[in-house]
Amino acid sequence: MNYNYVIGLDYGTDSVRAVLMDTAGGKELASSVFYYPRWAEGKYCDAKKQQFRQHPLDYIEGVTATIQAVLAKAGPEAARYVRGISVDTTGSTPVAVDETGTPLALRPGFEQDPNAMFVLWKDHTSIQEAARINEVAALQKINYLQYVGGIYSTEWFWAKLLHVLRTDEHIRPYIYSWVEHCDWIPFLLTGGDNLKDLKRGVCSAGHKSLYAVEFGGLPPNSFFTEIDPLLDGYTDRLFDRTYTAEEPVGTLSKAWAEKLGLSTDVVVGIGAFDCHMGAVGAEIEPYMLSKIIGTSTCDIMVVPEAEMKDILVSGICGQVPGSVIPGMVGLEAGQSAFGDVYAWFKDLLLWPAKNMDLQPEQLEKLEKDLLTELSNEAGKREVLENSVLAVDWLNGRRTPDANQALTAAISGLHLGTDAPEIFRALVEATCFGARAIVERFVSEGIPVKGLIAMGGVAQKSAFIMQTMADVIGMPIKVHRSEQTCATGAAMFAATAAGIFSKVEDAMAAMGQGFDEPYTPDAAKHALYNTRYARYKSLGGWVEEQRSRH
Amino acid sequence: MNYNYVIGLDYGTDSVRAVLMDTAGGKELASSVFYYPRWAEGKYCDAKKQQFRQHPLDYIEGVTATIQAVLAKAGPEAARYVRGISVDTTGSTPVAVDETGTPLALRPGFEQDPNAMFVLWKDHTSIQEAARINEVAALQKINYLQYVGGIYSTEWFWAKLLHVLRTDEHIRPYIYSWVEHCDWIPFLLTGGDNLKDLKRGVCSAGHKSLYAVEFGGLPPNSFFTEIDPLLDGYTDRLFDRTYTAEEPVGTLSKAWAEKLGLSTDVVVGIGAFDCHMGAVGAEIEPYMLSKIIGTSTCDIMVVPEAEMKDILVSGICGQVPGSVIPGMVGLEAGQSAFGDVYAWFKDLLLWPAKNMDLQPEQLEKLEKDLLTELSNEAGKREVLENSVLAVDWLNGRRTPDANQALTAAISGLHLGTDAPEIFRALVEATCFGARAIVERFVSEGIPVKGLIAMGGVAQKSAFIMQTMADVIGMPIKVHRSEQTCATGAAMFAATAAGIFSKVEDAMAAMGQGFDEPYTPDAAKHALYNTRYARYKSLGGWVEEQRSRH
Repeated sequence: MNYNYVIGLDYGTDSVRAVLMDTAGGKELASSVFYYPRWAEGKYCDAKKQQFRQHPLDYIEGVTATIQAVLAKAGPEAARYVRGISVDTTGSTPVAVDETGTPLALRPGFEQDPNAMFVLWKDHTSIQEAARINEVAALQKINYLQYVGGIYSTEWFWAKLLHVLRTDEHIRPYIYSWVEHCDWIPFLLTGGDNLKDLKRGVCSAGHKSLYAVEFGGLPPNSFFTEIDPLLDGYTDRLFDRTYTAEEPVGTLSKAWAEKLGLSTDVVVGIGAFDCHMGAVGAEIEPYMLSKIIGTSTCDIMVVPEAEMKDILVSGICGQVPGSVIPGMVGLEAGQSAFGDVYAWFKDLLLWPAKNMDLQPEQLEKLEKDLLTELSNEAGKREVLENSVLAVDWLNGRRTPDANQALTAAISGLHLGTDAPEIFRALVEATCFGARAIVERFVSEGIPVKGLIAMGGVAQKSAFIMQTMADVIGMPIKVHRSEQTCATGAAMFAATAAGIFSKVEDAMAAMGQGFDEPYTPDAAKHALYNTRYARYKSLGGWVEEQRSRH
Repeated sequence: MNYNYVIGLDYGTDSVRAVLMDTAGGKELASSVFYYPRWAEGKYCDAKKQQFRQHPLDYIEGVTATIQAVLAKAGPEAARYVRGISVDTTGSTPVAVDETGTPLALRPGFEQDPNAMFVLWKDHTSIQEAARINEVAALQKINYLQYVGGIYSTEWFWAKLLHVLRTDEHIRPYIYSWVEHCDWIPFLLTGGDNLKDLKRGVCSAGHKSLYAVEFGGLPPNSFFTEIDPLLDGYTDRLFDRTYTAEEPVGTLSKAWAEKLGLSTDVVVGIGAFDCHMGAVGAEIEPYMLSKIIGTSTCDIMVVPEAEMKDILVSGICGQVPGSVIPGMVGLEAGQSAFGDVYAWFKDLLLWPAKNMDLQPEQLEKLEKDLLTELSNEAGKREVLENSVLAVDWLNGRRTPDANQALTAAISGLHLGTDAPEIFRALVEATCFGARAIVERFVSEGIPVKGLIAMGGVAQKSAFIMQTMADVIGMPIKVHRSEQTCATGAAMFAATAAGIFSKVEDAMAAMGQGFDEPYTPDAAKHALYNTRYARYKSLGGWVEEQRSRH
């Protein structure tokens, strides 16, 4: 028999995962996870400065480890049936490269320099640079931010490039150009050695780099030099055309084919961001908001291009034709912290255990079970109008209306308030954050039919998902696949390799469907309406303080 | 030789302490502490409802245990030199009594009934009753709240009585009258068995029961029946005259003299609240704000009566001629939670250890050292304009402008915020709370020259005291005595027993003086001015929410 297998490679915040799938029926044949070793050690990061960098070697080692592992698990025959590999990554996670397209941290002398590494999506060191971009954009005749929600974020491509250029004179002369993680991995696997050949996906280009067909590509060099003369010339060294994830980059290079034990016929597809491919893996359909819920959320909606005429959605992370599914506008939004909110609270509560010489086995036990215990206990608590109420902006606010300088707040505390009560408020606050995004789509003329949820939090916590349904007042379908991003990448790999002619066909053939939906409780929804108004009021106070100071 | 010894008996929230002092020089000969056993077990309390009750047996057992202990420690000769005993207690901490002046919890059938026990100062079950008192007071021709700051508090005498009457039909017929803890202990020790003989101190009467010479005693029965017909007749069964703490109640009853091994010649003085006697123990002088800083704070100021003409200070806990020192108006204010704010945070952080089967010896270690660790670490953190900022109303707000329904809030949180950072903000918030009281005195026409601090927090934490000096911008003198309340009670005992003719003489003879003062840092004070404005803004948000809902 002849099989058509594909590999989806999904780069998350802490690890990379490969899944090997059969394109007939979508069966997952094997999967493997590789945790970034340098990242796990906390290297190159400084949480206080919100600096988060990742070394390219963490990524490269991850390709080899995971693909070799899935092939080994699937048996000796599997390798020869592999037809395609596609990649998704976090984003905007760009890196400084030289003319060969090599990240500078791979060059001698820069191996330990955080500015020569990938600037992870959640790195917030470039707050000032984003502010400068917004300031200059406001003076232009053409609104270059119109397709990215009207506000350029600290978390994005140009702000990060400018921050590195401004703050590191030493590295500046070596930075030839700037590449997103999702565009670099396919370039690497296909043996690229000249930056001119590096194909950029429309997903990263449109959502983060200000690329738009309407502008004829990127905004002009004059716009960027007005922001800062240090940006002079970059547009020329970047790109003027883009590709959708249905298209191939090329085939595996000889070196990589040998290392992985695969054929040089294996097609490597155009890369995209994790949530975009994840939305496909979770069988997105028009007007359903697809939420990948992990440390942060990435929210995706697709609307047929014809139905998006003249609609510009303000305050989201972009609307880009073809960024998710060709023929549809992909709209991206998201919450800067979701699971990270809970992880923060867990860390807070573990401060004594971590800083006061607790026995390691005792600490391990607390670490392992704390969130479950808090969640169980919080689920039993009654919510009243005056219960503890929080705002969820612990990592700033991505959408609606990006503002990474915003911070979180907790109110309604009294001497009887205990940890589960605060945890409950934090869960509710993250759901309020989700509601704010839904309300923004609706107020901008894009109806929301319901939610599709996926990711670790969605599958593990019925308490959080039910709270979200009650807070938003809409049903939530949780996708069965535990790895929607890798699955989506596999669906794109199958399309890029020509097994399907369009990705919708891959979705139909390979999708795994949904569990029973969470449906909202009307009485609770009414109470949450009142509390949501208070959330907006407290959030308004936080915004007002920030705009004053 | 002939010595004149006195005993000061200081009833705090968790324990009672006796000190035996020599009136010549004020040397402390012995001291002893007794922790209330029922209270330590958490009996009769419900923190979620903010119900805090104490059993009279905890108090009675404490007299015997501590006085016997100090006499034993001071040697066989000591008892015969004891001339007087005076008592201070928390307050308002009243109890329901029968016609004999016996607290109902000492009567068969009521031994386990929280409503038959002392309603501790920090019990906040009577929020609705305080609101009703304020509502009715606003309709009167005479403002019966003018000497208690204009707002009647949940924490006070009449609100607590009314709450018990309203919510407990069973006990209602047995409540003959209502007595403060500080007035009941001297009555007990002098063998009182008829409520008519119970002498009330002007301190509790003026600050909590609405007694004023200007009203000819308590407000009229008609005022109370308008509040609630359930209050009918209580004024008649309470009192129409009061005494200062310089005066004696009587001498030790035979039974108590025998039990304690003392003479029936020992004078028992009029009782008062802990902070009033504590201010004397800490050598208060006019226009210095004396702060006892423990779980909460009690702030006392004295102003010569002649200089207080026509001044009514709004939003504090009362201004009562003679309540601290005869001839001066005693002004009381305070923060509902101070050390309790830190204890709350400690408890919050220990939730995992307490709820997840940590080994007892590990938990004990964390319990013991956590606040010290947090304080050490917080002291190293730099304060910036946008650092974490909190409002301290975890137990409502006592002054300025009592409102026990208010709650605390914490803002400026981000993923890098750790426990010491929040602890630092809580310390700062409690100091902002202290500053708000100073500012109120000043804005009402009473200059504040500086602060005198005493109590556990003042003596143990240089970090907190320096923060307070920087926040308020005034020097703070910490009194040397570790037991200013008990010392103050001993000074009053010496005066009541006739060893001194007025308490100022006792202060001069027995006072221990001050350590080097904390002086404010001008640059830090300037930064705290900015942050204090933000504290008021966040507090304003909390108040606005409460008034709406």
